[in-house]
Amino acid sequence: MNKLALAFDLGGTALRGALVESDGRIVAHASAPTMAGAGSEAVIGQIVALAGTLLREHPQAKVAGIGVGAPGPLDPKAGIVIAPPTLAGWHDVPLIDILGQHFGLPVRLENDANAAALGEWRFGAGRGSGSLVFVTVSTGIGGGVVADGHIYHGRRGLAAEIGHMTITGEGDRCFCGAIGCFEAVASGTALGRRATRLTAPGDGSLLRRLSADGDVSARHAVDAARAGDADALELIEAEARWLGIGFTNLLHLYSPDLIVMGGGLSNGFDLLAPSIRAVVQQRAMPAYRDVPIVQAELGDRAGLIGAASLILWEGEPGAPLAMAQDDSAATVDAREASHG
Amino acid sequence: MNKLALAFDLGGTALRGALVESDGRIVAHASAPTMAGAGSEAVIGQIVALAGTLLREHPQAKVAGIGVGAPGPLDPKAGIVIAPPTLAGWHDVPLIDILGQHFGLPVRLENDANAAALGEWRFGAGRGSGSLVFVTVSTGIGGGVVADGHIYHGRRGLAAEIGHMTITGEGDRCFCGAIGCFEAVASGTALGRRATRLTAPGDGSLLRRLSADGDVSARHAVDAARAGDADALELIEAEARWLGIGFTNLLHLYSPDLIVMGGGLSNGFDLLAPSIRAVVQQRAMPAYRDVPIVQAELGDRAGLIGAASLILWEGEPGAPLAMAQDDSAATVDAREASHG
Repeated sequence: MNKLALAFDLGGTALRGALVESDGRIVAHASAPTMAGAGSEAVIGQIVALAGTLLREHPQAKVAGIGVGAPGPLDPKAGIVIAPPTLAGWHDVPLIDILGQHFGLPVRLENDANAAALGEWRFGAGRGSGSLVFVTVSTGIGGGVVADGHIYHGRRGLAAEIGHMTITGEGDRCFCGAIGCFEAVASGTALGRRATRLTAPGDGSLLRRLSADGDVSARHAVDAARAGDADALELIEAEARWLGIGFTNLLHLYSPDLIVMGGGLSNGFDLLAPSIRAVVQQRAMPAYRDVPIVQAELGDRAGLIGAASLILWEGEPGAPLAMAQDDSAATVDAREASHG
Repeated sequence: MNKLALAFDLGGTALRGALVESDGRIVAHASAPTMAGAGSEAVIGQIVALAGTLLREHPQAKVAGIGVGAPGPLDPKAGIVIAPPTLAGWHDVPLIDILGQHFGLPVRLENDANAAALGEWRFGAGRGSGSLVFVTVSTGIGGGVVADGHIYHGRRGLAAEIGHMTITGEGDRCFCGAIGCFEAVASGTALGRRATRLTAPGDGSLLRRLSADGDVSARHAVDAARAGDADALELIEAEARWLGIGFTNLLHLYSPDLIVMGGGLSNGFDLLAPSIRAVVQQRAMPAYRDVPIVQAELGDRAGLIGAASLILWEGEPGAPLAMAQDDSAATVDAREASHG
């Protein structure tokens, strides 16, 4: 069996784990609902249990290390999860140290959007490109920038907080307190809110029929637009305009080889893309207009595969990370590892 | 005499040249009005003439190479000046090849804002920092990002086109065609335009007295604010608000160790800074609020010193450029070089 990494994608809703081969193939997968309200010890216990499940399935696995994608803010170099809003009771948790001591394996940590960016760059829509900006459009908007084979980290790993880039003076106040954040006008949440305001319970609109007269979600808007509903098509058009303005900024600021759009709303990428591209053609300076804007390919596996890549390609030319760590990337037997 | 670089700062108005030592000291300086309308051959002739002037002053100089800062768009790796709007008749000029053949020396090219960013990072307000975003606020707004000791280039060297980041839906149309560009609302030109609209010739306002009843410039607004003029102080407050919104975006996107503001409007930095910082405190997410925002220190020497650094610190740890070039950084005698 080839060299493998144990990969985890730690979200506020689900904790997912996998054994990933160096060709990006997931050979085993397991998940559990995150005990998000129970504090860090409980969740770390879940990670250990999930690892045991995976390793029991593949007792011959040669595990080179553990890669973890987790919600920010986090410090990838220090290996510390700082204070994720979706995980109660996590404050400056030294996750690399804890998992490293438990498993006796090298551990790498990256924020979830960066991990997904790495996954798409190495094995998804961005494979073969020198650089990319990955944008995840879902409840919020997050991003990761890969340039010259590395995640662009910035101070404390806090670069590419693209959801809180101001792009307008209008719209609802963002949860961060500012007006005009990219996320506040262009996330799936913002689209759902516009759809909800445009309609009313019992008005017979397709949007409200799809939502059973409850609040309309971005998914309902995409489904209604796909069915040709005029209101939904206008909502999608407005959504694409905001995405196009934000993407144009990302072109001007990072000048990537391509932009990859992922997240829940990328299910509607085919509907959104023509207007996104039209806005970019209109607003970007000429030298940036030919940069491809494409749909992510790995779906919710991007984060797991990217987290694995923190282990599997370290030290190779163009490898995604060049962090100084004390532990060597020793390969240990999986059964040994599972006993920690 | 220590190792020296010949440095040029090629602007649409002035061409400036210098001999720069590896400690950042300028040992000789010369300049000429750029023959901006006369095409590339004429201006390259000016560069050669200026080099001759400088080398005649220092016949013992050991010149390691030539660093050039020039207006974008340009391709720093290919060494090509693409199509600068301020230089007529320049289209895809292979400046590195031309100067390299003439002088028989290694030549490096960088866009002017990036060169200034390097200068400030190595010897100015950013010395000792790991990363910085340099923002030049003048007729337009430009920028350069230094991270991990390197200019962040992106595809074709086009990253950090921060003047054309959309930050609002209001204001005058930018020359690029879009509405809401950072440059269109926050440049010195935008400040002057607001000051001109606020007043009228012959109204007796301090702003119009300073401008001799002509159009009011950013400089007049700064001078009037410094004298305590209420209108001017309000204009400075509005200007600082736009700068604060843009700088907050730069914090969220690049997460630098500090932001350095240069350009003509940085003459008013002491007046602008309190409100810029207040806006950042209000709008930036908590983890970014303690990042220093400081005034540039090198003035119009930043570009020359940065251009020199393309030659002088190449290959050192944390050196500003890691470009593959065929020519070696051979040190040749200056008289030999001047005969090229």
